[in-house]
Amino acid sequence: MKIALIGFGSVGKGVIDVLRRKTGDLKKYYGVDFQLTTVYKSDGGLHNEKGLNLEQVLQTNYKQNPSWKENFTVGDTLEDLNCQIVIEATPTNIQTGEPGLSHIKKALGSEKDVITSNKGPMAVAFRELIELARRKNRILRYEATVAGAVPVFNLVRESLQGNNIYGVKGILNGTTNYILTRMTYEHIPFKVALREAQDLGIAEANPTYDIEGIDAACKLVILANSIMGINVGFESVDRTGINEITPESIELAKNEDYVIKHIASIENNKLEVAPRLITEGSPLSIGGTLNVVSFKTDLAGEITVVGKGAGGIETASSILNDLINVAQIRGEAKRF
Amino acid sequence: MKIALIGFGSVGKGVIDVLRRKTGDLKKYYGVDFQLTTVYKSDGGLHNEKGLNLEQVLQTNYKQNPSWKENFTVGDTLEDLNCQIVIEATPTNIQTGEPGLSHIKKALGSEKDVITSNKGPMAVAFRELIELARRKNRILRYEATVAGAVPVFNLVRESLQGNNIYGVKGILNGTTNYILTRMTYEHIPFKVALREAQDLGIAEANPTYDIEGIDAACKLVILANSIMGINVGFESVDRTGINEITPESIELAKNEDYVIKHIASIENNKLEVAPRLITEGSPLSIGGTLNVVSFKTDLAGEITVVGKGAGGIETASSILNDLINVAQIRGEAKRF
Repeated sequence: MKIALIGFGSVGKGVIDVLRRKTGDLKKYYGVDFQLTTVYKSDGGLHNEKGLNLEQVLQTNYKQNPSWKENFTVGDTLEDLNCQIVIEATPTNIQTGEPGLSHIKKALGSEKDVITSNKGPMAVAFRELIELARRKNRILRYEATVAGAVPVFNLVRESLQGNNIYGVKGILNGTTNYILTRMTYEHIPFKVALREAQDLGIAEANPTYDIEGIDAACKLVILANSIMGINVGFESVDRTGINEITPESIELAKNEDYVIKHIASIENNKLEVAPRLITEGSPLSIGGTLNVVSFKTDLAGEITVVGKGAGGIETASSILNDLINVAQIRGEAKRF
Repeated sequence: MKIALIGFGSVGKGVIDVLRRKTGDLKKYYGVDFQLTTVYKSDGGLHNEKGLNLEQVLQTNYKQNPSWKENFTVGDTLEDLNCQIVIEATPTNIQTGEPGLSHIKKALGSEKDVITSNKGPMAVAFRELIELARRKNRILRYEATVAGAVPVFNLVRESLQGNNIYGVKGILNGTTNYILTRMTYEHIPFKVALREAQDLGIAEANPTYDIEGIDAACKLVILANSIMGINVGFESVDRTGINEITPESIELAKNEDYVIKHIASIENNKLEVAPRLITEGSPLSIGGTLNVVSFKTDLAGEITVVGKGAGGIETASSILNDLINVAQIRGEAKRF
């Protein structure tokens, strides 16, 4: 199956690296032959109808690559591109969803299945995109948009079948989890923990997006729409950041065997991101940079998944599972 | 699809209750029509070719049920039974795997797909059963054998596709987790916590099976065979129980932000169940009666799932997912 990748940042490179490492195994075990024929950047694209040399794409400056085509853009070429699957991995814009939103529409509109790691389009236009995919009889997968490597949508779809999900709670942002964990176990104030996270590259220079819960709220909107069928947007999320949490409050909590966590929750159709007291040793008490998602179900009880919420290879792992799944649905890969 | 259920204990009743609650939804959303036609007990069976009345099966003394047939046994009738799926839910015998082992062989041998919650047969004869199913072109699913409601095998098969799993660590027994959690947070000695667990029905009168790690070792054997392709039996598991853990050692650990957990692990092809120091706030630090399974993967990093390891309805939730999955593979249920 021919794949076009849009975006050549950390996730895009992760996808290429994962395809490079796994193409042989996938052929052997799943009987599927994935070929990356196109990689779009903002100023042009790499394109080879017979499949790009992935080693070369990763190691050579892209403009030196013989397959580089200046001005080979999504806008001009995607619709007529000979490929079955488009992976959208451009940066997130949570106001407009662009440019990902247009990319996904164009791909679905021209009879291609789509896999995306881009939260923007899914948070901004979930219903519209799902509806478009349905109308065009296309598959749209977005496992990587929430909690990176952690199977969330796939878990519910494939492993909790028959269950009714009536609530979701989670730690959907690794940066705030890291900051709160350091405050808890190293007894340092918020500002010190934040600076440390920035030095380590865990937090951005402008950390608003993370510490005010904007990132978590976006993911929560996708969860609400996808898993609970609630038609809501970002503006419906009640948000409180973590910047006013003091070492004293954390210490007080810890003395009573509680930890303070930045929890995203969907309860009774209400979406909220806010600091909460969590019992030590309970699933949502998990620290470090990890993401945690807990589903309340009618049969299985509470089921929680934990793992890395970021990282190029980790995010590409979710995209790979989506890829194999699309190939299985299209009859091009074996199921087990 | 016609289903026969073997076993009428807590799991068996859970399965009937779940089918009672969900049959309508399953028809509506998955387009699948499950009919429970047979329930085997040790002294006979309930059987109705047109489907049993599930309400009646749950509420009436089974010997008063008009569908009750004295001496309607698995041995005499299963092979010729008109059904597509057999659910094996008899009690576990980890020495011989019986009677479950014979039941599963008989079902697979007579062209029926099998779903089991019984650890015994899978721990005693994993390879033999998988091989028999393969030869007979039958499906054998056993999600409920490890960690009750928690998707483990399905998670790896459906949601971590393309990943290489190179290690597993987990808390596979809710009773020992409960005892250690109580010792940690209530500062009580092992014997007191054990007695409390027995009073609450969490531990058996003879708690050996749990506290010496026999139950966890069985589950670990199934994980090793199924997920890591290691051909090992129960005798290969290195086991240390939790009965010698003192409140003092737990207190010492806690002062350094560690908790003591009874951890089942597969590392470098070695299987072990033993008490270990776990960092507070890390995925394996989760307490209560919960089960936890952590997979080390080459792409996704460490992925952990947490949930209830026991309970009739919870275990039946895993069986239900297997049922839907079997129906999907057989083309009798819709996929999403």
